[in-house]
Amino acid sequence: MEEGTGRCEAFSDGIFAIAATLLVLELRLPHAGLEGSLADALVALWPSYLAFAFSFFVILVTWVSHHDLMRLVRGTSRLFLMANGFALFYVAYVPFPTAVLAANLTGPNIRTAVAFYCGTFVLGSVAVNLLVAAIVHDQLFRPEVDERAVARARRALQVGFWVNVAATAVALVLPWVALALSVAVRLYWLRHRYHPARSTL
Amino acid sequence: MEEGTGRCEAFSDGIFAIAATLLVLELRLPHAGLEGSLADALVALWPSYLAFAFSFFVILVTWVSHHDLMRLVRGTSRLFLMANGFALFYVAYVPFPTAVLAANLTGPNIRTAVAFYCGTFVLGSVAVNLLVAAIVHDQLFRPEVDERAVARARRALQVGFWVNVAATAVALVLPWVALALSVAVRLYWLRHRYHPARSTL
Amino acid sequence: MEEGTGRCEAFSDGIFAIAATLLVLELRLPHAGLEGSLADALVALWPSYLAFAFSFFVILVTWVSHHDLMRLVRGTSRLFLMANGFALFYVAYVPFPTAVLAANLTGPNIRTAVAFYCGTFVLGSVAVNLLVAAIVHDQLFRPEVDERAVARARRALQVGFWVNVAATAVALVLPWVALALSVAVRLYWLRHRYHPARSTL
Amino acid sequence: MEEGTGRCEAFSDGIFAIAATLLVLELRLPHAGLEGSLADALVALWPSYLAFAFSFFVILVTWVSHHDLMRLVRGTSRLFLMANGFALFYVAYVPFPTAVLAANLTGPNIRTAVAFYCGTFVLGSVAVNLLVAAIVHDQLFRPEVDERAVARARRALQVGFWVNVAATAVALVLPWVALALSVAVRLYWLRHRYHPARSTL
Repeated sequence: MEEGTGRCEAFSDGIFAIAATLLVLELRLPHAGLEGSLADALVALWPSYLAFAFSFFVILVTWVSHHDLMRLVRGTSRLFLMANGFALFYVAYVPFPTAVLAANLTGPNIRTAVAFYCGTFVLGSVAVNLLVAAIVHDQLFRPEVDERAVARARRALQVGFWVNVAATAVALVLPWVALALSVAVRLYWLRHRYHPARSTL
Repeated sequence: MEEGTGRCEAFSDGIFAIAATLLVLELRLPHAGLEGSLADALVALWPSYLAFAFSFFVILVTWVSHHDLMRLVRGTSRLFLMANGFALFYVAYVPFPTAVLAANLTGPNIRTAVAFYCGTFVLGSVAVNLLVAAIVHDQLFRPEVDERAVARARRALQVGFWVNVAATAVALVLPWVALALSVAVRLYWLRHRYHPARSTL
Repeated sequence: MEEGTGRCEAFSDGIFAIAATLLVLELRLPHAGLEGSLADALVALWPSYLAFAFSFFVILVTWVSHHDLMRLVRGTSRLFLMANGFALFYVAYVPFPTAVLAANLTGPNIRTAVAFYCGTFVLGSVAVNLLVAAIVHDQLFRPEVDERAVARARRALQVGFWVNVAATAVALVLPWVALALSVAVRLYWLRHRYHPARSTL
Repeated sequence: MEEGTGRCEAFSDGIFAIAATLLVLELRLPHAGLEGSLADALVALWPSYLAFAFSFFVILVTWVSHHDLMRLVRGTSRLFLMANGFALFYVAYVPFPTAVLAANLTGPNIRTAVAFYCGTFVLGSVAVNLLVAAIVHDQLFRPEVDERAVARARRALQVGFWVNVAATAVALVLPWVALALSVAVRLYWLRHRYHPARSTL
């Protein structure tokens, strides 16, 4: 049961990398591109660039977070692999809400689209909370990991869950505020993360 | 001939990760999305979400299984690489029956689609049985692997093959029962697997 | 200059795995699938299955070959990385001729399509020959690699080049013979390869 | 903070490999391929082949460069991971300007398309400059890396930035000259690179 997390990380990194790169497939010029100038068409794609950059950032932050977490884990278990698989399912799914967001950012459905997009992050929060719970349950943290730090990190992850729920609700009224909130939370996390890793860095 | 299985696992993990992530490309909003609400369109995609989640789960369980198996193998051989390649061919192929399933889950062709989907798992069973046979033939199991555990695992894999054949046949009459059977078998396997790995964990 | 080939192999494995898995994207049901039965539509896709399986086999054999070769190399150089990059370019390109093959295997353009497909293997032969030449030029073979074995392997690779040229020419007259020849050569190579690896296995 | 760069490289290699391979998806035969000969249609795709080969070369050179750089880095930091993430964003984005280039290389919008394509390389230069700045800021170079070599490399990267800016401007007048310039700069860099790696090779 304790072989380290090498192959699990390789598989995870593959899914992170592919999901992040597949986002580019949503960037597409309209086929009827001959009318009007190409420059206009490229500028008109700004919602797609924005959605691409946003989701790439989200996946990157999730990867950094996963990367930090894995360094504290001494091996894998069946439960861990399943919980990790659920987190990877979320990552692999991100390109779809991204496409929905890009297609509707300038139209009448922007509220639904942003709520759908932020709702995906709720799924992501659930997945990460389950992953940490699985690690705790199967006692997979390395011995040197501080229990209080783990408890703090779990509280922070629960806060993250509620922020994502709130952003989803806000999106139905003020979609741009919800998007700003989603970025702000991640920037905050990147700076002041309450993460078990912190205590060992 | 005995360099461990490092690079083979890296290649395999790549194919597992890519196949699992490519599934998301089947999730697509209809282009004529302006009629009706976006929310309705997103809900109407439920067969695609279901097919995505189902196949992601299938690939994940296959990956866990492959992961367990590789830990018991001390090196690669030509035959092993070919048999492993056939198993990877199955994995890379999964997105296509998934798309067929998603497109026909609510239509008149559901029986054919589910039979085609479950039939793919028969192919997968054949591939895994061949892979284990190749490992046994070229004596690639680590010395500490118990022969009786291997024999038990091979019987379990043969049972899996027949369950998949049965599910394919059932699909032609009761497609949803066939899908439930396919999930149940994997959940059962995850809990009580008769796997050579078990004896060494 | 001598850090082993670890990261180069990781990058290479990524491209091999992605190219092999992207092949599945060519498997697509016609959108107007409601006319006629689904079963008929699935059967009518046989040229796509065949092209998918063929190219997956080609990429797999190329990967095994690359895998063997890398085990004999002690490090990388600039020239080596460029030559390897050219070989990877060939691998990444394979899905396109595969799509051309699948789309034309039953139509009037079969001769052109198969010649285009086999012509791709000529490109692949050139790439592999250049890669081995780069390894020899920068003296990157491990000291224990036998020079005569290398010379034999290079002759075999040159024969492979001419077989691919011949298959391309044959395709313009007898396309199915050209395809059979392309498989036969690879099966032969898998069995009786004259490869530097051989002497060390 | 110092665990080496292993997993960061695995993630990065994944994105490099996927972006390079996704380029092939832009190679597509027109659906109305039955009119005219297949051979003519394949020849008419030359702008797509050219754009594919060009961007594959660009990504390959960027990967070699990243590969060299990582060998000099002793570990990762938060800032480093973010800067590296921005560089990977650039890499993941390359397939889109490649598609724009391929679609417009023979039409009236060639100037805009090439400027958009070369403008992407400005983004890439910014990203690499930021990555080296992050490495310097967090003192992540290995102790044996010579400071003067780093300074030389940074100057060369700044020159690269201005060359890319110039190529973007030139593209608006002489698009083919801008493309030639972009290749020439990379070939020059491959031969006479002023790179910190150089001093340790």
